[in-house]
Formats: sequence, structure tokens, C-alpha cells
Amino acid sequence: MTATAPPDRVAELAAAVTDSSTSPADLVAASTDRSGLIPAGVPDLVVRAVTVDDVVATVTHASRTATPVVTRGAGTGLSGGAVAGTGEIVLDVSGMNRILEVDPGNGTARVEPGVITADLDAAAAVHGLRYAPDPASAAISTIGGNIATNAGGLRCVKYGVTRDAVLALDVVLGDGRRLRTGRATAKGVTGYDLTGLFVGSEGTLGVVVEATVRLTPRPVGTQTVTAAFATVTDAADAVAALLRAGLTPSTLELLDHATLIAIDDAHGTSLGAAGGAFLLVQTDGVGAEREMELIRGILCRTATRVESAADDAEAEKLLQVRRLALPSIERLGRVLIEDIAVPRTRLSDAVDGIAEISDRTGVKIFTFAHAGDGNLHPIVVAGAGPTEPIPEPVQTAVGDVFALALRLGGTLTGEHGVGVLKRPWLSDELGDVGLGVQHSLKTVFDPAGILNPGKAI
Amino acid sequence: MTATAPPDRVAELAAAVTDSSTSPADLVAASTDRSGLIPAGVPDLVVRAVTVDDVVATVTHASRTATPVVTRGAGTGLSGGAVAGTGEIVLDVSGMNRILEVDPGNGTARVEPGVITADLDAAAAVHGLRYAPDPASAAISTIGGNIATNAGGLRCVKYGVTRDAVLALDVVLGDGRRLRTGRATAKGVTGYDLTGLFVGSEGTLGVVVEATVRLTPRPVGTQTVTAAFATVTDAADAVAALLRAGLTPSTLELLDHATLIAIDDAHGTSLGAAGGAFLLVQTDGVGAEREMELIRGILCRTATRVESAADDAEAEKLLQVRRLALPSIERLGRVLIEDIAVPRTRLSDAVDGIAEISDRTGVKIFTFAHAGDGNLHPIVVAGAGPTEPIPEPVQTAVGDVFALALRLGGTLTGEHGVGVLKRPWLSDELGDVGLGVQHSLKTVFDPAGILNPGKAI
Repeated sequence: MTATAPPDRVAELAAAVTDSSTSPADLVAASTDRSGLIPAGVPDLVVRAVTVDDVVATVTHASRTATPVVTRGAGTGLSGGAVAGTGEIVLDVSGMNRILEVDPGNGTARVEPGVITADLDAAAAVHGLRYAPDPASAAISTIGGNIATNAGGLRCVKYGVTRDAVLALDVVLGDGRRLRTGRATAKGVTGYDLTGLFVGSEGTLGVVVEATVRLTPRPVGTQTVTAAFATVTDAADAVAALLRAGLTPSTLELLDHATLIAIDDAHGTSLGAAGGAFLLVQTDGVGAEREMELIRGILCRTATRVESAADDAEAEKLLQVRRLALPSIERLGRVLIEDIAVPRTRLSDAVDGIAEISDRTGVKIFTFAHAGDGNLHPIVVAGAGPTEPIPEPVQTAVGDVFALALRLGGTLTGEHGVGVLKRPWLSDELGDVGLGVQHSLKTVFDPAGILNPGKAI
Repeated sequence: MTATAPPDRVAELAAAVTDSSTSPADLVAASTDRSGLIPAGVPDLVVRAVTVDDVVATVTHASRTATPVVTRGAGTGLSGGAVAGTGEIVLDVSGMNRILEVDPGNGTARVEPGVITADLDAAAAVHGLRYAPDPASAAISTIGGNIATNAGGLRCVKYGVTRDAVLALDVVLGDGRRLRTGRATAKGVTGYDLTGLFVGSEGTLGVVVEATVRLTPRPVGTQTVTAAFATVTDAADAVAALLRAGLTPSTLELLDHATLIAIDDAHGTSLGAAGGAFLLVQTDGVGAEREMELIRGILCRTATRVESAADDAEAEKLLQVRRLALPSIERLGRVLIEDIAVPRTRLSDAVDGIAEISDRTGVKIFTFAHAGDGNLHPIVVAGAGPTEPIPEPVQTAVGDVFALALRLGGTLTGEHGVGVLKRPWLSDELGDVGLGVQHSLKTVFDPAGILNPGKAI
């Protein structure tokens, strides 16, 4: 970690921007995200950007003084991508939160990075449109943060991830240059795909100051069904069967037995008694009813119980099970929210492998998954207070989960990003050439290496 | 253009690879694509790669001797991306055409770059699957070429472009290093999105030696309808209305009046009499019938005539109109196939603007479009033989079409790539910073600048 910058240098930057703070409370608040990671010390300054000029001034100053800049939205990240310590400057863009335009004719919107994801969706709803990506954090996270991590969510299986929803970006590069990427059209191949490169780059290539995103019609006729299965393998087989049949559920969520028991313990339900795995399935669109009929046919072959929602109120009740999963586990103490993805045929192997790791290490792990994408969230109970170090067996278990993902042909992170937490395993996934290329790429956009150093790659 | 390489240097490379040729006929055949562009001279050597080792040997030799390498698949490109002249080596990968694996459970396939796109689709069909991107050239173009240009097609409006179908690549970089990008999982955010960067890079960043692509279930229940409209504006408004209604046609093609007349002249039909514009619409999936019912309702509001196909044979007849468009125009002489895209609300402005350019310059231009994507193909009659220079008024008209696209907030190329032909207009679209970044990016992957120099960026 760098040493604290000289006070006059910090003051110089503070004088160049609209708003900033060096109050200890503000610095502490700006030093962490929701990864549980505790940085060494606190940052030197928090810049609260309101305009693009604030961003340019911050980056330019940082570039000249070789000061690391950690860009930050709502701080809801789960991988430590927005953690900042001594000698670093935090560039908080949550105040750049204007929805600049909603263009219903073209199904697009232009937004600043600090716009809360749910607020964009609400603005789209006025026109019968929707911002499709729906990370669980949508009510509290920002579009800029979603772009930084290529955030996913429950609807990805039908509607894609954040990268699929971003058409164009306006970015301030590490040397203060402004770069526009992409275009407002649905298709285009002029130049390399820089937009896709910035999505998921976790603040290491530039600071997004505006995004043009795709809006799609709000879906009609949503159907909701839940099913219980004796085993995860049965549930995973049902998932595979309905995807093979060409059906396109908009939600396809799996909960493992440990998670069901945690919900039962917290809420007095008896989900665990119905079977070892639980699926939540939704369909939408013109063919939703017929599609759900076909899906029910597949589920009923092996499920121990299938429940359909007759109306919105009943659908809410069925959705509630999925929503209760994480809070029910969080009652048990501090958790580490992991995010591996595997080829979808390896879904039950992954769940079984995680259960084996839990048994072997004695560490409690609960797994739910965006089953259609093979994206699992193993929730590891840390067995330590919020500021205590993670115990050895828990570290072992987490490492084993990552190794399992790679062994099954999968990835360290499906939608949360690498941040700091997953960096030790990066070269296992990317290989030496891959990781080397990534570092060389960064220097094109950030020659001085000031943008979120030590994160993502 | 570089001078011819010394014969011993050419012989040295020839000795290092499985197969190559310096026969004048082979060199001429390997010097052009379907852009109509005539390079200065012919390349020094055509390497016919059969193995990855052939690719590595070629690139390594070229890197050491600073020789430009033009990678080539089937040579069906329309922008001059595969054109090669004196002093250049052609790396023909069309012989690397094995389908290495079809994994129906995960809906993926691993293929070599020279696989014909339609052959991959046929291999997928055995398992009830499909390779979704469908460029008009699918029967003759290769997956590698499709990846190089981020090829599109008729189904993009529902199923996306080539970039959406590519999960992972195995690439030989400009210095001979092997790079694996992406992963076999549906989601993943480990490292920057290098896969998306290579798709559309027109052979300037590396040579793709293997691709992992996504396969999707073959659609069921396809419905086909055509509609005639008095004006392009009416047709474009109908397109906008049905997309706004949340309907998801799998095909949504527009033909302008000039194109209809060209078909009539060639085939004795009377399409032009029914109106000034023609739409072809298809739906597929579980809701296809209901969806087409709703689409018909929208079309019928303003169409002068709507025809539905009752069975596959009738559907074929309706599809035939779209298929006849280009051949009917090509009867009139050599054509330049352009490929602009605009925001979809500007579709009729684009068609009107093109008609105005045609009137003003006296150059015949026919337009058909992937209407749902705002991607237009203005077909410009060149008024010159295949090896003659393009007349001044035609050059003016083409330049005006590009300027029109940019003025309407669009792009120079939706799905064909920049190649050589569109490079003069690149900085108008990308800006100086954008173009500068693109050039810097190239050096990361191709330090010696040997891969398809003078193309794409």
C-alpha cells in the first residue's frame, strides 16, 4: 500500500473539484464495499464528483502525481473492487445520477453512472419499457457499478447480462482523455468492441461518465411455478431437459437443501421436508402460458411437488422463497458470497462438490444458483466477526470451491467480478499469456497505472 | 505496398508449413474477396494451413521478417478485409475445417476457423440445435470469416450477431503466442472481454485457430407473413409499432420500391404495383402463432396488402421475394454492397436520404434492410466493369451514403466490417481519440504490426 500523500497535494485536488471530504467518517465509509474486505488504512480523500469536469480533474491530478484512484458507485460490490486504503483517492460518482434521456422509439436511455439501477428501470417503465439486467442489488446499486462488474441477475437466462444491455459509453481514460465507445444502433462493427471491453473492467481502464443502454418492452403474461425435487441432480436434469426442449424461461433458480433448511429455520416453513432441491421458474411474453404448460410437463416427470401461481399475489408468495434465501443464511453470521459458474451439465456436480467441501472442512456452505446459466452462489459462513480475519478452514473451503469451478470447466466469477478476493486464482483460469495480455491492455487506457491498481486483473 | 520478398525468404516459409503455393493462378485467386477491390499486384505466397503449427510457423516467420499476413477463409468478405497484394503473404485457413466437438448438453460446439457456417449448422441440427447467426453467405462463408467481421444476418433481430454466439477463442497472436479467451460457461467476468474484442477485428489482432460457439434449440412453429405498404415510412412505422408492442419477430426485412421494381423486371412479378415498400416478417417459438396474429393486426392497420403462409411451401414462396432482391439487382452490372446502420426510428429517413442521393447523383441505388436492427444494405450499381475504376459520381454517392448514416446517428457498417473500403470515413465515426486507442490496442496483440495492416482500423 502506498504511503499517505502530502497534505498540500490532497488539498490541491480538493480545490480542483466541486466537492470532496477528508473527514474520518467519510473516509472510512468510502474505504469498503460489501465484500467484507478490510483495506490497510483509509483513503486520503473522497472526491464527490458531480460533473465530468470533476472526473477529469481527479484523474488528471492522479495521473500527474501517480496516485491510485478507486472509482466508486454505491459500494455494493462483493469482490473488493471498490476497496480503498492509505495513499489512494476515492472517486465517488454516485452524485452523477441524472437520467439524461429516455428514447422510447429506439428503446435506449442515456444515463450518468451514479443512477440507481432500479431508478432507470422505473423511468423506462413510464414508457412500457424495462432495463433488463436485474442484479439482486438493483434497488441500491448503480448502473456504473453494474457496468464495472458486468452484473447479472435472475433474468439473464433469457435477457442477458449487463454487457448485452450497454450500447455505448463515454469514458474518461487514465490520462484524462475522453473516449466515446460504441454507438446508438442495434448493430455495428466499426472498430474494435471497446464497449464490451469496458463492461466488466472494474474501474481499471477508465471512469464511465455516461452510458447508452438498451431498454426492452416490459414483458407481459408472466407465469410463475415452483417445484421440489428429491435431489439436486433431479432438479438439474429437469433444467437441462427444459432448455434442451427449446423453452426459454425468464427465471430459473435453484436452491439446495442446506439453503431450504436455513429458510425453514428462520421462517418456520417446511421447504426442506419437500425434497433436497427447489426450483423457481418463470416464463413471460406472448407464449408464456403455453410455455409454462410445457415446462410443468417436464417438471412433473421427476418433481416431488409442483406449485403454480394463479395470480400475482400467489406469484409473490412463490418468489418469496428465493428472496428469503440470502437473509436466512446471513442470520448465521458473516458470510462470503461466492459466484462461480460451470457448464450447465456440471451443475449438480458443482452442488455435490460444494457439499463435499463443506463436509470435509466443517465449514457451512449454502448454495443457490441461476441454474439456466450454470451460475452458482455458494454462501460460505465466515465464522468470524466483521473485522476479524477469515479462519484458515474457511479460506481452504473457498479456495477449494474455486478449484472445483475450474476443474469442472468453469470460471471463478459469473457476475460479481474478480475485485481483490479472486485475484490469487486468476492465472489458474486465464493462463500466463492471457493474464499478461490483460495487463498490457490496461496500459493502453491507463498508461500511469493509476486506475484501481491491484484489482480485477 | 511493400516490395516482393526475396525468393529465399518465401522458400523458407514454404518449407516450414504443410502446404503452400506460388502458382500465379493461386496467388491471383487469393488476392481478392467479394468487395470488388483490386489490390496492387499479387501476394508472394499462399500458405494453406492445415494445423495450428502451420499458423504459428507463418506468423512467427512473418513477425521475424516484418512481412504482412492476410488471413483468409472463403474470401466472401465485402469490404476488402481479405485483399492481399505484392509483398504480402496470404494465410488461408479454409483447410482447417474440422468440427471438433458438438456438446448438445451444454449447447456448444468447438470448431476450426475454416468450417463453413452452414456445415456447423447442419452438424448442430443432428441434435435439434442450431447455430443462430445466418449471414446471407452462410452456405459459402466460414466461421472464422464470420468471426472476423462479426457477421449478422436475417435472424439477428431476435437471435443476435456472431459476437453473441462466440463463447471462447483460441488465437495465435502476431508474435506467435497462443492465447485462449473466454470460457465455455454462459456467464463469466474473469478478466477483460477479449473474446468480444477479437470478434469483428478482421484479422488484425490474431489468427483464430479454434472457436467455442453457442448452439441454441432449433426453433419450432415458424410463421411467415409479407406485407406491402404505400411508402417506406408506413412500413418503418409498422416495424416500430410491433417492436414497441414487445413482439419479437425472428425476421423483419424491408425492401424499397427500387428493389421491388428490379425484382419485377427480372422475374415478371408485379411487386412494385402493390406499393412502395415490402416487409417480410417471421416469428418462431412456442408463441409464434399468437405473436404473428398480433403482428398481422399491426401490419393490417396501414399495409396495402398482407399475405400469410399457410404451410412451408407457401412460406418458401414468400421468402423467395427477399432472396431474389440481390440477384435481381446484380443483373444490372457490378454492384457495391453497402451496409450502414441507423437508430431504428431513422429507418425511413435513411431510405429517403438514399433515394435523394440516387436522384441527385444519377447513380442507381437499391435498398433493402434488416429493418428491426436499422441495418440497411444500399446496393449501388457501380457503372464499371469488374476491373475498372469506380466512376467519380458513384464514389460521391457512396461517400454521401456514409455521411448520411453518421448524420442520422448511425454507423458505417452494421455487419460487413470496415476492411479497406470504409477506412477513409473511420475517424468521422470513431473520433481521433477512439481511432488512436484502436491503433494502440492492436500493438498489444500484434507488436510487429504484421497482421492485416491497413485494414479495419
